[in-house]
Amino acid sequence: MQDHFIGIDLGGTKVLTGVFDQKGHCMAKAKMKTRGEQGFEAVTARMVKSAKDAMEQSGIAISDIRGIGVGAPGTISADGNRVAFAPNLQWKDVPLKAALEAKLGRPVWLDNDCSAATLGIHRAEFGAKPRDLVAIFIGTGIGAGIIANGAFLKGAHSNAGELGHMILEPGGSSCSCGNRGCYEALASRSAIFRKVKAALEDGRKTLLVEDPSASFTKLRSGKLRRAVEGGDALAIELLEETSRYTGMAIANLCNLLNPEAVVLGGGLMEQLHEIMMPAIRKTAMKCIMLGARHGLKITATALGDDAGITGAALLAEERSR
Amino acid sequence: MQDHFIGIDLGGTKVLTGVFDQKGHCMAKAKMKTRGEQGFEAVTARMVKSAKDAMEQSGIAISDIRGIGVGAPGTISADGNRVAFAPNLQWKDVPLKAALEAKLGRPVWLDNDCSAATLGIHRAEFGAKPRDLVAIFIGTGIGAGIIANGAFLKGAHSNAGELGHMILEPGGSSCSCGNRGCYEALASRSAIFRKVKAALEDGRKTLLVEDPSASFTKLRSGKLRRAVEGGDALAIELLEETSRYTGMAIANLCNLLNPEAVVLGGGLMEQLHEIMMPAIRKTAMKCIMLGARHGLKITATALGDDAGITGAALLAEERSR
Repeated sequence: MQDHFIGIDLGGTKVLTGVFDQKGHCMAKAKMKTRGEQGFEAVTARMVKSAKDAMEQSGIAISDIRGIGVGAPGTISADGNRVAFAPNLQWKDVPLKAALEAKLGRPVWLDNDCSAATLGIHRAEFGAKPRDLVAIFIGTGIGAGIIANGAFLKGAHSNAGELGHMILEPGGSSCSCGNRGCYEALASRSAIFRKVKAALEDGRKTLLVEDPSASFTKLRSGKLRRAVEGGDALAIELLEETSRYTGMAIANLCNLLNPEAVVLGGGLMEQLHEIMMPAIRKTAMKCIMLGARHGLKITATALGDDAGITGAALLAEERSR
Repeated sequence: MQDHFIGIDLGGTKVLTGVFDQKGHCMAKAKMKTRGEQGFEAVTARMVKSAKDAMEQSGIAISDIRGIGVGAPGTISADGNRVAFAPNLQWKDVPLKAALEAKLGRPVWLDNDCSAATLGIHRAEFGAKPRDLVAIFIGTGIGAGIIANGAFLKGAHSNAGELGHMILEPGGSSCSCGNRGCYEALASRSAIFRKVKAALEDGRKTLLVEDPSASFTKLRSGKLRRAVEGGDALAIELLEETSRYTGMAIANLCNLLNPEAVVLGGGLMEQLHEIMMPAIRKTAMKCIMLGARHGLKITATALGDDAGITGAALLAEERSR
């Protein structure tokens, strides 16, 4: 019986894969490093390996799988067959669908990672009930998925959802896109990393760096959480600042779209939502107009890191109907 | 034959009314001052007078009218019968539909003024073709209407479109809503008025004020245009600044929603679009991500001041089907 689905969340750092039954229940998961620097062939081989690992754990054979959904960190070509551009993986116009179908022998559907995760949140967490919902994903970068009038909002050329490039502070920090003061340049994990680096250069002490003589090259969300829990002043200050920006971004979205729910996900939220949500909600509620505050739910996704694989599996389920 | 429609655009300053034939052609218009300070009864009497004036000019009798649409500057109650809140008119929960129906004897439909004008632009100007379109109205305040996935985006509680309260500059100018740095507090006619006032206090000379000893209490869009045409440095500077903010607001919308078209209207644009559009487009195109720039049209509405009455008449036509 081909009544199971595989959902793959392809990230810049890791590949997360889940096997789901017909009811959308996750039976098993597998995680691998992406190693994008090894190129397209190697990454697709690792995706296949991760799918096989998850199937083995779940006891489900490839003959039981109806289809495979993939959320990829970039834009998908109009025909849905290729990843048009994925800057974190340095992919440009690669035939991901065909490559995976050749190796797994089952149909594959691609979508943008934020879109897939939003689908997971909207359907699996909210039972597809809200006609207007926004999901925001905060990690290395920031993206969003919008449900408007009950349907996914793709926009004229499938480029909607670039919330990370909403200008929130004209003339503010430089963004990778070439502009200044984008939300992503103010409140993503990369933005926090840059601010920690600048603070270290100013001679500030922080629990975020054990060995001040070593070069500071990476900031993990878990480390940020532990630093805050340890009372680190710099980490607390930076998270308060970024929470304010996220609150404003949410307010801008709510004043514009008046959704029923705003749901936060992504690596930074996965680790830090308990610490950040109160400050995020406070700023957001202060800045949202009265009419758009009514009945509004602002919450971290209950699916956590699984939003992406859940949505990718649902994508396969929807497309294979 | 009841095959004609009346569209009324109720503004804080003026009431504009048009009689439209079955093809959506405007046969005659009438304009009156609103005089909101005289209260609800007096304003509705003036709306009725303006409708009768327009009918008289067009040679159309009330028996030829199938319905009347009204765009009102505020929020409409969920049942569509009352204006829930219109701050500029100091109206709270007034029975506008019943009052007009009692006096005109024909069915009346109410909508928010920005929503009605957006409907006019989308249907009459763009032939209802774009599935994703945003209309922005810049005058005393700033509002927007959003067409998403081919339908009007109202949001969970009909409060979508509050673009004027998108925070564009945290800690910036105070806004009437209580927050700081809202787009409306930076780039509406009221914002320009405040900036002129501050410049006068700093001793700056400007063509905007003929008699510096008289108190500066009003700034009309037409006067701003003439000052720019006369080479007035302050007026030029302020319009460049506000055009930049409008360009950024458009970029934020386009990165988020990826519409096919962004259309600008409202009193300030009606008078100043020729002067402001090049600077608005320049900033917007610089800040919109490559993918969302594709095929994008950023333009002033060809309907000008008639967008509101056109949309209000179309509202009546749609609802009376």
